[in-house]
Amino acid sequence: MVGQALAAKLAKMGHRVMVGTRSPSETLARSAPNAAGQPPLSAWLQENPAVHLGTYAEAAQLGAMVINATNGMGSLAALHQAGAANLSGKILIDIANPLDFSRGMPPSLSVSNTDSLAEQIQAAFPETRVVKTLNTVTAAIMVAPQLLANGEHTIFVSGNDPAARAQVSDWLKDWFGWKHILDLGDITSARGVEMYLPLWLRLWGACGTPMLNVRIVT
Amino acid sequence: MVGQALAAKLAKMGHRVMVGTRSPSETLARSAPNAAGQPPLSAWLQENPAVHLGTYAEAAQLGAMVINATNGMGSLAALHQAGAANLSGKILIDIANPLDFSRGMPPSLSVSNTDSLAEQIQAAFPETRVVKTLNTVTAAIMVAPQLLANGEHTIFVSGNDPAARAQVSDWLKDWFGWKHILDLGDITSARGVEMYLPLWLRLWGACGTPMLNVRIVT
Repeated sequence: MVGQALAAKLAKMGHRVMVGTRSPSETLARSAPNAAGQPPLSAWLQENPAVHLGTYAEAAQLGAMVINATNGMGSLAALHQAGAANLSGKILIDIANPLDFSRGMPPSLSVSNTDSLAEQIQAAFPETRVVKTLNTVTAAIMVAPQLLANGEHTIFVSGNDPAARAQVSDWLKDWFGWKHILDLGDITSARGVEMYLPLWLRLWGACGTPMLNVRIVT
Repeated sequence: MVGQALAAKLAKMGHRVMVGTRSPSETLARSAPNAAGQPPLSAWLQENPAVHLGTYAEAAQLGAMVINATNGMGSLAALHQAGAANLSGKILIDIANPLDFSRGMPPSLSVSNTDSLAEQIQAAFPETRVVKTLNTVTAAIMVAPQLLANGEHTIFVSGNDPAARAQVSDWLKDWFGWKHILDLGDITSARGVEMYLPLWLRLWGACGTPMLNVRIVT
């Protein structure tokens, strides 16, 4: 859902976009709705002809910038398939949440407290500039913050490279219209935004909708 | 700091308030500022003569309602000293955060992800109605939310007893003036508000002040 929302939006803006999967031929062969009840990716690709499909490695090689919108439990494996060489020197926007549903609801985090998924990705790919962002809102809000409260709410960026954080902040503003972007500092601050997920899930329950966000007030 | 802010405010409103410590005589004998640079409690008590000092057990016995504003790492020990009988049937407002500074900065949580301090307290004192709240803001905002953004921000309540959550919500409104109180449901939702602390600490850094909060927008 997250990858499709971002790919569709970026392709509509005229960017060259490739979605990576383990096996494009297997992905295209699927005709049944996925576990979330969405149409198969093949149907979605027909509606979004400007989006290309390739392997993780092909997508990473093509991109001047790479977005990790995989399931957090599988992110490191997917990025290793993408390949360190194809990610080297690039900004990697990490949107994944390490939610572990294997022990039932509510999900727990597979990494937290003294580490985070974003830190693990940065450690595994030291030549890549990892910036954590957008993981604190539902996909529809990521690419259209103005759908909610006239855009008067906050998104966070975390990463070790200040220039990469500033570049991603500019993209969030220019591409999607984010008005309130808060720079939290180095990649260890990703612990905070990943550990926010259990609260976010309860906010969804309390508000009755995932179309919600926080606005930071001072 | 949290206990003093709440005790001073409640005493000024005319409530009978007793602060509990391990040893009132040792507490009163201290004349040096504490580790945070605050004046000793004896000086604060002279400025707040309506606040009484007693043991944990005496404070719990006196109170129709009890507030846990102890260090999260020591909360269970303090509450065991307060005594299950003295807490039975009462609402216990749990404000503590299980922050562990022993491994340096930033602090981690001593319990998180699949459990929370509030759940551990509820499990240890099953006859007590534990309501987690106020742990997501600094002490000055807890008792005076209007100091920030005209009070247009959100506080959360978690607990297994809906009537206790409603009672605490009424108190937050009537005593302190909270306008936006979000009921997150049962005590497992305390995981969310406790795991928010690492983000809150980074928000403090990014905003340059602990006088901050989130407003939930939908």
